[in-house]
This record gives sequence, structure tokens and C-alpha cells, in this order.
Amino acid sequence: MSNHVYKVVDIVGSSPTSIEEAIETAIEKAGASLHNLQWFEVTETRGHIQDGKVAYYQVSLKVGFTLK
Amino acid sequence: MSNHVYKVVDIVGSSPTSIEEAIETAIEKAGASLHNLQWFEVTETRGHIQDGKVAYYQVSLKVGFTLK
Amino acid sequence: MSNHVYKVVDIVGSSPTSIEEAIETAIEKAGASLHNLQWFEVTETRGHIQDGKVAYYQVSLKVGFTLK
Amino acid sequence: MSNHVYKVVDIVGSSPTSIEEAIETAIEKAGASLHNLQWFEVTETRGHIQDGKVAYYQVSLKVGFTLK
Amino acid sequence: MSNHVYKVVDIVGSSPTSIEEAIETAIEKAGASLHNLQWFEVTETRGHIQDGKVAYYQVSLKVGFTLK
Amino acid sequence: MSNHVYKVVDIVGSSPTSIEEAIETAIEKAGASLHNLQWFEVTETRGHIQDGKVAYYQVSLKVGFTLK
Amino acid sequence: MSNHVYKVVDIVGSSPTSIEEAIETAIEKAGASLHNLQWFEVTETRGHIQDGKVAYYQVSLKVGFTLK
Amino acid sequence: MSNHVYKVVDIVGSSPTSIEEAIETAIEKAGASLHNLQWFEVTETRGHIQDGKVAYYQVSLKVGFTLK
Amino acid sequence: MSNHVYKVVDIVGSSPTSIEEAIETAIEKAGASLHNLQWFEVTETRGHIQDGKVAYYQVSLKVGFTLK
Amino acid sequence: MSNHVYKVVDIVGSSPTSIEEAIETAIEKAGASLHNLQWFEVTETRGHIQDGKVAYYQVSLKVGFTLK
Amino acid sequence: MSNHVYKVVDIVGSSPTSIEEAIETAIEKAGASLHNLQWFEVTETRGHIQDGKVAYYQVSLKVGFTLK
Amino acid sequence: MSNHVYKVVDIVGSSPTSIEEAIETAIEKAGASLHNLQWFEVTETRGHIQDGKVAYYQVSLKVGFTLK
Repeated sequence: MSNHVYKVVDIVGSSPTSIEEAIETAIEKAGASLHNLQWFEVTETRGHIQDGKVAYYQVSLKVGFTLK
Repeated sequence: MSNHVYKVVDIVGSSPTSIEEAIETAIEKAGASLHNLQWFEVTETRGHIQDGKVAYYQVSLKVGFTLK
Repeated sequence: MSNHVYKVVDIVGSSPTSIEEAIETAIEKAGASLHNLQWFEVTETRGHIQDGKVAYYQVSLKVGFTLK
Repeated sequence: MSNHVYKVVDIVGSSPTSIEEAIETAIEKAGASLHNLQWFEVTETRGHIQDGKVAYYQVSLKVGFTLK
Repeated sequence: MSNHVYKVVDIVGSSPTSIEEAIETAIEKAGASLHNLQWFEVTETRGHIQDGKVAYYQVSLKVGFTLK
Repeated sequence: MSNHVYKVVDIVGSSPTSIEEAIETAIEKAGASLHNLQWFEVTETRGHIQDGKVAYYQVSLKVGFTLK
Repeated sequence: MSNHVYKVVDIVGSSPTSIEEAIETAIEKAGASLHNLQWFEVTETRGHIQDGKVAYYQVSLKVGFTLK
Repeated sequence: MSNHVYKVVDIVGSSPTSIEEAIETAIEKAGASLHNLQWFEVTETRGHIQDGKVAYYQVSLKVGFTLK
Repeated sequence: MSNHVYKVVDIVGSSPTSIEEAIETAIEKAGASLHNLQWFEVTETRGHIQDGKVAYYQVSLKVGFTLK
Repeated sequence: MSNHVYKVVDIVGSSPTSIEEAIETAIEKAGASLHNLQWFEVTETRGHIQDGKVAYYQVSLKVGFTLK
Repeated sequence: MSNHVYKVVDIVGSSPTSIEEAIETAIEKAGASLHNLQWFEVTETRGHIQDGKVAYYQVSLKVGFTLK
Repeated sequence: MSNHVYKVVDIVGSSPTSIEEAIETAIEKAGASLHNLQWFEVTETRGHIQDGKVAYYQVSLKVGFTLK
């Protein structure tokens, strides 16, 4: 593993339900065009409010994948 | 939307169950006295421990609302 | 409470399911050897990805406990 | 001046034209309800994009004022 | 305590004598209009200089109080 | 809007005249190859100096756009 | 001194009187079980409030000591 | 260019009109005593308020110059 | 140079030998698909340990290149 | 005051007694060669330990002064 | 790997020769009492100077190991 | 040592070969005009790229020296 090079992209996912679902939505979408996704790191957790309630969570991720 | 002014307040919500519930509790409480809440940002996630288990989550938020 | 001294340790817990479960796993493990755990603070939320899905969440905590 | 106490509030102003105008809009609005505004500090500069152009700048400020 | 919501305000206190007195001045002033103050956190320690000596210390605090 | 996924890219624009023009140059260039640009955030403001004067401003941005 | 290895621990001390006393209390307690303490760094200054006054200061330290 | 050494100084410029003018004022003043100024980086944007309006912008810079 | 636009990408290189080799590996790999690489900035230095020794260094970089 | 330019220098003062005395020692020393000192900001509070007690506090300051 | 718990310790290593040797010295020392070391992260790179030359590098690490 | 005052300056050194050589070049240059250099801290590691290879490393340091 010692000679791998990773690329890291910034993605923001959202979900009306939970922080985990926002993360999973972002990773699923990223995986549609990028292969070999390896790890992620949460960099920001925000959300939008409607009628005094959380309308949706919005989670920013750094996602790393192997460059072949 | 380009001439809006927002005010941002810092609130801390808590919940024995989940980070999301702590966020929702804080926003519901803030909404009782502040109208036009628009968005939030998590700034800190902490919690208290009792008998070796999480007693409650405590989540700090910045919450933005429109100044009329 | 004003003359207590706390020690703080860094622990990383993981869970295939949720951020909260990763936190609880870390605290339970820490409680096996450290008594009087009082509070925690999340310092990093990361995770590993397998086959384009979250394989597990990995949450870094600072955990404080009373020094007798 | 040595025994003054200041309160600091977080405000976000916006402008389609410039960062300075966004700052001035925020301070003017804040001054409508708060007196004795003394200083500000920019904490974030963001903006919205429409049709590939800056629609408006959005500048977050901390604004300090004297508590009587 | 698990269902409390806190609000947090930013205050700056000053004192010609010490950092602690600047903190205490700020909290006393805040307590005149806000009840149920619970904790504070120092976010910045600055000061003004006159004739080559410290004229006064100026300490910025976040102060949390219970929202009823 | 709750199920959108955004991608975020880092761009640096420059201008001999103003910070706003450096931002607008960067966004215009980014818009040539990326569609659906939604928002930006300034992460760094630097510049080069020639003959004791500002030769050009150089502004680093995070720019978010919708992933279809 | 060039081949020393230090270990660093996180400790929180408290005092009803001053920031310095909170630091000294923490170091004295740490010195009861750890030898060869060399230096400290303040990472956070907080406190608790009771009846509108500072009940006690709570200072977080990193403390370094030589590993034999 | 690979064997140059730079020195970096911290300067604060101000202007009643714009952030750019505050930067240019600072650099012009620095250039009066320091030669070979090469680049700058904005580290803080603040300002003073009078009668509810921006009295002047105050911009902190790091300025780098070649050591001969 | 005043009207250039740069794009910045995040890359992680690794090496069993040195931090410099990890940086050079990452840049060489990036250069295979991106032209006009201009500068880099180290954002994180980590590594993996095997049998009580450094197995490999892992260095995260921001790498900037000119957008034509 | 709107057309002043400040220079800022980094100084570290120390004292066996208190954080305030370390600050005052640093400012007094700086004032011996620099005139028109205006303000300071604490950037780091550290110290050395001897025989399990604080030997001296060591406080890092940014100190601003008017450039004529 | 999904149910592992890691503990993280802070260590500072030094070397008269290189940053890498300072890291390796710290990890070797840590490995004498802690087993299952997995990864490290550099948090600070400092050094001491004697007679105008680097006397030794001093590198601060977070080192993670598996809790059985 | 308890009543020393240090001054700290920011210097950037470069080298085509290694991070350590960039540090040593900067300190040697600083030592030509400043005496009693005591310690340094790395604040930024960057570099320039030419023809897809590292042309030179560029390391920013804070360097402390005793004020007599």
C-alpha cells in the first residue's frame, strides 16, 4: 500500500432524516463516477430550516480514492 | 434575496438519544421566540457520561434568521 | 466541584451503523479501564468506504475523567 | 474606556455589487435596533452564483457595541 | 439536565488590573439582564497600551445560559 | 432541494484591480466547463507586489455546483 | 537533549480564585503520578458561573514530560 | 529563485473607503522602508463604526520581501 | 500573470522512505493527467506503522495548476 | 485615525508569578526600542515546570504600534 | 476492522539530523511500552538552534494503537 | 531563564533538495543579522513545480531570539 496515490474530492450530501443518510447519499453519488473510493472525512455539518423545523441536513465531506 | 440581512445566534441543544434530536430540540426552542429561522451550522458536538454510558449529547449550533 | 482535576484521553470508536454507536462503543471500551468518565467532545468524524458504501464510521473523541 | 463591557452579535449582510456594500448594509440594519456600535470583524465571505455570475456577495460579521 | 437548551452570547470585559477581573466585570454586567448564567469560555485576550504600559486588559467570552 | 448532491472545487482568480474582480474572473472561468454553479466561499486573499504597489490580487475560492 | 522523547498528557485544573491557581493545581496533581514534568501549554480557559459570579476557573493544559 | 530567503512582516492598513485601499495604503507605507516587497496575504479584515456607519476599514497583512 | 485562473486539487502521496519522496510521488502522478502544475502546499503529514516502525509516510497536498 | 498604518511584532515575555506579569514584562521590553505601542493580543500561554511546580509562565503576544 | 477502538497518545521525538528521524525515534520509544501501534499524524514541527545552526528537530505526533 | 524576553520573526527559506535544507538556509540567513537565535517552529510547507517535478521546497518558520 506504500506507493499508492490518492485524490481527494469535496462533496456535500443532504437528507431530510439524518446526518448518516446525508453522508451515504453523497458517497453513493460520488461512486457513480469515481471508482475505488476508500475513506471520507466530515468537514462541515449544516442544514436548512423550514417552518421552525429541520428541513434537511447538509454534510460536507472530503472523499479519498485511489489513483490508478 | 440579495438584500437580506441575517442575524446569527448560538444555541446548544441536548438529547439522551441522538445528535439529530439534540439539533431539533435546539431549533424548536429557538423558533419559539425567533421567527424566520433559515439555516444552522453545527459548531461543536459534546456530551455527558454517567455510569460509563452516554447520558446525553450536547450539540452547539449557529442558527441564522432573516432580520425584517 | 471547584477543586477537581480532570485527565483527558483521545479515543477513536467505530461502528458500521451510526455516529452515535461509534461514540458509545468508544466510551464503553474506555470505561472498562478508566473510572469516573464525565464528558466527551467529538474532534473528528471519518469513515471507511467499501464497494461504494460506508463500511464503518470512525469517530475521534476527547474523554474527560476525574483524577482522584 | 477601561471599564467598558461590549456585547458582540453575528450578522450577515449581502449586496449584488461589492463586499464593502454587503458590510455596510449589515451594519446599517444592525444600527436600527442597536446603538453604540463600535467595531466589526469579517468572519466569512461567501456568495451566490446565478447563470455563471456572482448574484450577490454575503459577508458574515461580528459587530461589537457598548453595553450601558 | 438532558433536555436543557442553552443560548450563548459573546461579551467583552475589560480591567486595568487583571484578566480575571476583566472576566468578572463582563459576567457581572451580563448577569444584570440575563438570568441563569451557567458557564463561560475565553475566546480572545487582548489589551490596550498607554505610555509603554498595559492600560487595560480586554477579554472576549462566550457565556452560556439556560433558556426556560 | 433536500436530495441534491454538490461537488466543491478550489479555484484561484486574480485581478489587478479588486478582490471582487478576482472572484468574478475565477467564477466565469469555472463556469466555462462546469454548469449549475451555485455558491462560493472565499478561503484566502493574497496578492503580488511590484515596484512597491499591488500588481494583482489573488483570491482562493471554494465553488459548489449541483451534481446531476 | 537532542535524543529525548516526551509524552504529552491533557489535564484540566480548576480554582475558584485565578487562572494561575487552576494551572498550578493541575500540574501538582499530575506530578503526583508522573515524574520529569517539563513544560505546559494552555489550550482552553473556561469556567462555571453561580449566582451571576465566577464559581471557578477551569483551565485545560497539555503537559509534557520526559520518557526515560 | 530556489535559494531565496524571505522575511515576512505584519502590517495593518486602514481606509475610509475600501478594503483594497486599506491594503494599498499598508503596502505603500511598508515600501518606504523595506525594499523588494514580493507578496502579501490578508489575515484579518476589521473596521471601526461611527454614527452607525463604517468609519474606516482596517486590514491586517503579512507582507513578504527578499532578504539580500 | 495577473489574469491567470488556477485550479487546486487535493492529492495524497506516500513513500516508505521520506516526506519529500511522498510529495514527489504525488506530484509525478498528478502530472500524468494534469499539465501546467505550478505549486503545492502540504496540508497534512501522517503515516502507517508496522511492527513498531514507520511503514510509510503519507503526505496530503494541495496542488495548483493553470486553467487555460 | 482612519489613515494610520500599524506594524505588528511577535514578542514572548515570561514571569515566575503570573500571566499578567509576563505580558507586562514583554511590553516594557518592547517599549524600550519601539515607540507608540497601541495594543496587544495574547496568542499562546505556555510555561516551564521544575520540581513539579510552575517555574515560569511564558506568554506570546502580538504587539501593534503606529508607523509614523 | 469495523468494531476496533483506538487510543491516541501525544509524543514528541527529536533528532539532530532530520524530521523523519525525529518521527522514527518517537515511534520506536512509544513502541517499547505500547503494542499494536497503527498510525501517526504530525501535529507540530519545531526545533532548537545553537550557534546559528539547527541543533535538533523536535516533532510532535499523535500515535494511534488498537485497544484490545 | 525566567525573566527573558524573546522576539519572534517570520522567515521563509527554500531549497531544491529537502525540507530540512530549506529550514537550515533560512536560519543561517537570519543568523547573519540576528544573534541569540533559540528556537524555530514550522508554520507552512509549500513548494514550486517545474516540468512536473518539485523545483524547490519553501518552508515558513517562526524564529525566536533573546532580546538583550
